[in-house]
Amino acid sequence: MTNTDIKIQDIGEFGFIRSIMDNCHFSSEKLVKGIGDDCAVIGPYEDKLFLITTDLLVEDVHFTWGKISPEHLGQKAVAVNLSDIAAMGGKAIHLFLSLAIPKSTRVKDLHSIYRGIKTMCERYGVNILGGDTSASPDRLMINVSVLGEVNEKEVLYRDGARPGDGIYVTGTLGDSAAGLKLLKRELSAPETLANSLIKTHNLPVPCLETGRMIARTRMASAMIDLSDGLLADLRHICEASDAGANLYHSGLPLSPELEALSEINNFDPHDLALSGGEDYRLLVTVPRKYASSFQKTFETEKLAHIYLIGEITRPNRITVLMPDGIEKQLDTKGFEHFISP
Amino acid sequence: MTNTDIKIQDIGEFGFIRSIMDNCHFSSEKLVKGIGDDCAVIGPYEDKLFLITTDLLVEDVHFTWGKISPEHLGQKAVAVNLSDIAAMGGKAIHLFLSLAIPKSTRVKDLHSIYRGIKTMCERYGVNILGGDTSASPDRLMINVSVLGEVNEKEVLYRDGARPGDGIYVTGTLGDSAAGLKLLKRELSAPETLANSLIKTHNLPVPCLETGRMIARTRMASAMIDLSDGLLADLRHICEASDAGANLYHSGLPLSPELEALSEINNFDPHDLALSGGEDYRLLVTVPRKYASSFQKTFETEKLAHIYLIGEITRPNRITVLMPDGIEKQLDTKGFEHFISP
Repeated sequence: MTNTDIKIQDIGEFGFIRSIMDNCHFSSEKLVKGIGDDCAVIGPYEDKLFLITTDLLVEDVHFTWGKISPEHLGQKAVAVNLSDIAAMGGKAIHLFLSLAIPKSTRVKDLHSIYRGIKTMCERYGVNILGGDTSASPDRLMINVSVLGEVNEKEVLYRDGARPGDGIYVTGTLGDSAAGLKLLKRELSAPETLANSLIKTHNLPVPCLETGRMIARTRMASAMIDLSDGLLADLRHICEASDAGANLYHSGLPLSPELEALSEINNFDPHDLALSGGEDYRLLVTVPRKYASSFQKTFETEKLAHIYLIGEITRPNRITVLMPDGIEKQLDTKGFEHFISP
Repeated sequence: MTNTDIKIQDIGEFGFIRSIMDNCHFSSEKLVKGIGDDCAVIGPYEDKLFLITTDLLVEDVHFTWGKISPEHLGQKAVAVNLSDIAAMGGKAIHLFLSLAIPKSTRVKDLHSIYRGIKTMCERYGVNILGGDTSASPDRLMINVSVLGEVNEKEVLYRDGARPGDGIYVTGTLGDSAAGLKLLKRELSAPETLANSLIKTHNLPVPCLETGRMIARTRMASAMIDLSDGLLADLRHICEASDAGANLYHSGLPLSPELEALSEINNFDPHDLALSGGEDYRLLVTVPRKYASSFQKTFETEKLAHIYLIGEITRPNRITVLMPDGIEKQLDTKGFEHFISP
């Protein structure tokens, strides 16, 4: 294979992003953060920073007709972006929408997608300010960009984690991945159980209020939202912070639904908790000295549960501490779009 | 046809946009302009307004491999967005890029696209701050969003045109549409002539400096960039300003290249000037009292030519005044994506 024949499937999404990340800045005025965090950050304007994030949903890559209703699709397209704003401790303000629409798309379905988008925007007080619509030869594509803001003193990045910091997540893990496997019929379950997990996959809830609360405490050292899978996203934190991590296998929070599903289908639910993507929980690191008052804040505010799942370490690798005392170096690969199996 | 069967091709792009434009604002804080102009406008922050625009390029809708080089495609994806910033009198600052990439895409071609994007960003001092990449089942899609800024006192909208204002364009019209027809082999020409017009189509030049200069004069009443075609974009101005327009058929600026092409292929070049899209010139309206000093500014600054092509009128329709004195009500439809022929 010569150099010119290399396909995107050979180097993967992150490989491609790394290869284009250099020399992207041609003006440094009011620029705080470019590529490499959940959002780009610019400012300050007055005492606020602006956050900008973009997510793309492509038919037959991120969703399939018949597996998600048009309205839920619209909601999800917004939720995944709001989750990125949440990961910086921010508040979402404005939304921009691009749609590439096959000619044969029913206007009714488009309006349902749009109703889903509006539902989410209304819920979180986000304006829909514009975008672009275009024809598409065959597949629907939805690109959503969201502009948010955060108090300059409260913003949280990926690169602040330090050895000794506790690693927390704001909810159970693996449910969304289980829902996806049910949709793909790779797993099976009674209807009520299946519907519950599928709903978690199709209708993620962005942790905006929880993210704001964490930011306001000013105790956290780093934050990210879990979209690629716990191991992959923790790796993003570790790489940005030049650190490693120990994860407590038995500390991974599992929902009763995922546990029930794993019993029926005879698999270890921790695998989905570690590597399944699209949890859209927040992963946050907190210096040990704040651990107890940080956890107390969660008890007081009752917005979400918080689970201690590990500790930031010095060496640049992620180790999973098994209940039997064995240390496991796990494959940190989360969901990557282009790599051929 | 029942209501639920209506397809997007039945109502068209603008029909769909109109149907979703209501009730899009759930917070009015610092919101100046939502859907309905070249950019959304928020602020002020200090004395600046922010401009945000988004454009989507879809393979086999907006471009076809083999008809445009990857590098030019990257340049064009940026240029069409910068043109929207120019239309508000703004300066482009930050860019966000989403790519949906078929697995089999050559990394070399992606890097060429990216080089084109960087070339434009470097030329105009625009930072590339992030975005999203995803797999695509078959076709490449490029979504670019640009954030710009403009002095609060200089911003120009579509809705400020008043009866009596002169209508100006900042360059010749119809060349891009001619280039597209040559690419599609609907017209033919000697190689040098064809290449020149095709280049105009593939490598539009955003009128950022000209737009800034017009804004600084504070003489203009409205501005838009010509992307959908002169008649369609003038109609946007007229609708937003609740006005009509007379266009001087003989005043439409034509390039020598377009005139040569029209002679070879025996068509009226004015038709392309009126209805061909993607000119990416600025259309600007100026009250009569400023006409002479406005034109003098262009002579002094030598950034671009300016052509008087008509006048804003009271009634809500667009009339083309033919050289023989006949008034023609022309079809105002520019390029619309979804309507089936």
